[in-house]
Amino acid sequence: MKIDTLAIVGVGLIGGSIGLAVRQRGLARRILEVGHRQASMDRALARGAVDEIFFDHLEAVPKADVAVFCTPVDLIAEQILSAAPTCKPGILLTDAGSTKAAIVRNIQGRLPPHVHFVGSHPLAGSEKRGPEHADGNLFEGKVTVVTKTAETDSRALDNTVEFWRSLGSRVMVMDPEAHDRSLALTSHMPHLVASALVSILAPELAALTATGFRDTTRIAAGDPALWTGILLQNRESLLAGLDLLGVSLAQFRRALETSDRPTLDQLLAQAKTIRDALDQTNSWSA
Amino acid sequence: MKIDTLAIVGVGLIGGSIGLAVRQRGLARRILEVGHRQASMDRALARGAVDEIFFDHLEAVPKADVAVFCTPVDLIAEQILSAAPTCKPGILLTDAGSTKAAIVRNIQGRLPPHVHFVGSHPLAGSEKRGPEHADGNLFEGKVTVVTKTAETDSRALDNTVEFWRSLGSRVMVMDPEAHDRSLALTSHMPHLVASALVSILAPELAALTATGFRDTTRIAAGDPALWTGILLQNRESLLAGLDLLGVSLAQFRRALETSDRPTLDQLLAQAKTIRDALDQTNSWSA
Repeated sequence: MKIDTLAIVGVGLIGGSIGLAVRQRGLARRILEVGHRQASMDRALARGAVDEIFFDHLEAVPKADVAVFCTPVDLIAEQILSAAPTCKPGILLTDAGSTKAAIVRNIQGRLPPHVHFVGSHPLAGSEKRGPEHADGNLFEGKVTVVTKTAETDSRALDNTVEFWRSLGSRVMVMDPEAHDRSLALTSHMPHLVASALVSILAPELAALTATGFRDTTRIAAGDPALWTGILLQNRESLLAGLDLLGVSLAQFRRALETSDRPTLDQLLAQAKTIRDALDQTNSWSA
Repeated sequence: MKIDTLAIVGVGLIGGSIGLAVRQRGLARRILEVGHRQASMDRALARGAVDEIFFDHLEAVPKADVAVFCTPVDLIAEQILSAAPTCKPGILLTDAGSTKAAIVRNIQGRLPPHVHFVGSHPLAGSEKRGPEHADGNLFEGKVTVVTKTAETDSRALDNTVEFWRSLGSRVMVMDPEAHDRSLALTSHMPHLVASALVSILAPELAALTATGFRDTTRIAAGDPALWTGILLQNRESLLAGLDLLGVSLAQFRRALETSDRPTLDQLLAQAKTIRDALDQTNSWSA
């Protein structure tokens, strides 16, 4: 894959890492970055990760052959729809948002015929934010979900898959709704539950937390504004996830109430089996 | 602190690490270990971490000046009570159990006058088990809770505090019930919740888990039998913890149901503040 001009909109951890990854692999002749904080942009320029900086995506995207939107999930559709009429024919637009159904639904059928959008979600987040944590190998060995619907242009889909593969990612193609249902359980529920667990900790108990508490709640340090957007866009799957969790917690509660050792043992053993399997099947992304 | 003969009952991660820590710091002339798996015991001997091995605590504890019980929480009181009549006068008995109230309650008032017990809990667990993960610096910089009740002998308490400090631990003295209430929130609830989160994951979603899910659920890989014992011994505090968590999850649910962005944002921001403070105040045990 060889891109002439790549535009990256949003210069956080993901946008910054895409810039570095593309530059290190020589995948684009020219990289344009769109951000809103002068300091971040200057750093990206100084680091040689980008060739030109912009403060308005409407100035950068018209020059691009491929544009990746790495902005908060509630801005992506709006930014893409506003830029679309100004785009070069044949441009590929994609994103890195943690939700997919609402974004794809909002964009689909509303683009000019010469502009294609394919949704993406690299599963390479972190509770760390900002381009200072950017890493050109962030996507190496990680899964990126690329979305496909009945309306997705097949060449644009192929190019999107190739783009993420070029950055070292393992690509899974699925429909946007399946993505959101799955990520509700693998990412959004953990975030919500970690936040709930932290919020019931009285401050004076901080000294009695150890590695277990730290690991379990690490993601609760994520950016609240970003996560509010993600949770709201995936609210239906999350409500279903909360129902499922409620059933599971009720099983634990009943076993505790009745001091039912065999059931408690079985619930914990079942969880251990699933968790252990995870380490074995997914060691490539550990 | 200088011990003549130390007995360690139970040769898992904690027992093994105590052996190594004491040996490396030259705190005891002779270390006896009591276990039940020949292979583990041979390894401990070969490694030079212990001087003598036993398969029955009733043979080792009578020779000891200090004995530390690192067996599952439901065995500790029983083992201590059975060994007590055979102990040398002035012996100090302590433990490393993750619960304290039931253990202290079962032992207190039932020991011969020449035998003292003080409860301990080093917060240095791991989802890793077994002496092969033992580490002589495991307790360095970690908190150990030492329990005190109206009946606790003050010299035995001082010696117990000194023992853990000699291993590099930071000691907090508290009553057993306060320990259990606190640990319910900082350790036992996270374990239960991580297990519940894992158990609602359909196996085909494994490929869509990333670092967030891994961190959040890591402790669910802990030993089910050990954790069943811990959760049951602390069931009342856990039931109270489940109530608290239920309130917090209900707030998230309501905010999602009503698409209430400001409330969701506030809930996440509150959690982030608590979580961030944890990293700052507790960096010594990170």
